[in-house]
Amino acid sequence: MLNQTHPVVRGTVYGTLLNEKKALAALGEQVHVAPYKAPPQAPVLYIKPRNTWVSEGANVTVPLDASALEIGATLGVVIGRTASHVSVADALSHVAGYLVVNDISVPHASYYRPSMRFKCRDGFCPIGSVVVPREAIANPDDLKVSVAIDGVLVHTASTSGRVRSVAQLLADVTEFMTLHPGDVISIGVAAGAPLAKAGQRVTVAIEGVGTLENTLVAEDLV
Amino acid sequence: MLNQTHPVVRGTVYGTLLNEKKALAALGEQVHVAPYKAPPQAPVLYIKPRNTWVSEGANVTVPLDASALEIGATLGVVIGRTASHVSVADALSHVAGYLVVNDISVPHASYYRPSMRFKCRDGFCPIGSVVVPREAIANPDDLKVSVAIDGVLVHTASTSGRVRSVAQLLADVTEFMTLHPGDVISIGVAAGAPLAKAGQRVTVAIEGVGTLENTLVAEDLV
Repeated sequence: MLNQTHPVVRGTVYGTLLNEKKALAALGEQVHVAPYKAPPQAPVLYIKPRNTWVSEGANVTVPLDASALEIGATLGVVIGRTASHVSVADALSHVAGYLVVNDISVPHASYYRPSMRFKCRDGFCPIGSVVVPREAIANPDDLKVSVAIDGVLVHTASTSGRVRSVAQLLADVTEFMTLHPGDVISIGVAAGAPLAKAGQRVTVAIEGVGTLENTLVAEDLV
Repeated sequence: MLNQTHPVVRGTVYGTLLNEKKALAALGEQVHVAPYKAPPQAPVLYIKPRNTWVSEGANVTVPLDASALEIGATLGVVIGRTASHVSVADALSHVAGYLVVNDISVPHASYYRPSMRFKCRDGFCPIGSVVVPREAIANPDDLKVSVAIDGVLVHTASTSGRVRSVAQLLADVTEFMTLHPGDVISIGVAAGAPLAKAGQRVTVAIEGVGTLENTLVAEDLV
């Protein structure tokens, strides 16, 4: 059922937390309490391991312990050239292209690093199979992002208004960690990610990059 | 310099936090304060992505922002057969074998999910290249683990005294996430992990499983 490989991804898939100014602002005072006591200074990354990867058209199982799933429409940046300590000015030259990512979660309140039980269930990362070359996207930081459920538009956002632009994110991440060709790093999910339930068809669209459609299904009782 | 592939590992490498009773006890009251307010109920996992993987004999760079690194000797469990919702009794039948893992970190105080800046720097996960078949290990929960620095024994521990045995860990993890052949899950690091500095040779040994030797080197100033 799970392919555990993906036609495009050959490395690690990273997600970025709290990278939308609006989403960060929505936390209000929470970011000032223990244990962190301040908003994050460095990009807060997590990994979507390969048990989460599925492709266009695949069914995504809603686990028994969730009544609905959070649909995390986001832009995936595909690394084309090994990137270590890259400057902001040079960062995008390490990008092969862009694709659509649906970074699915079990809804959860905490802004702390979420557990794998929330973000890494089987099938929780549909990834588009088409990489739009970097040269085809004039400005990755100004693309419309939308989510439709059963064909009805339920959420719109943009890749703008980010704490870190794509180039800044790559510069800040590669300051401490090398990104390799075939790695994918998503810029993070906007505030107000919609919920979807088993039986619903979810379509994520990113302007100029493409669409990604998957259907949520109930977990089979074995 | 970094191979980004490993002769044995073909999937995801998971680490487990707070899986030694002694390490958990050492936290004392900390586990009862915000945000979690109680000891973890489910295994606390993290991922060592492929930029961290290196093999026997490889140099490991100490980043400029660390004066020493924490040497996390631990047993790696290599999955041989797809494991989803496995029982404790059946869990070990999904194991191909065992290998030695050195789960290196930048020393950090927090018991919260550590950031990638602490655990996922390039080269921070030396992994042995020899998988000892499951059948050759009578009891994976009773193996001596040791760390030597420049040939001097500095730390001894055991795979016993765990919050979860290997079988229990596999059962609890596969309750919410499928493990695939070629995935590796380490049982976690014991309390009192020793530190090592650039220029030092680090040897991790696990009884019946083997040894793993790597040298720490200073970061090149580019």
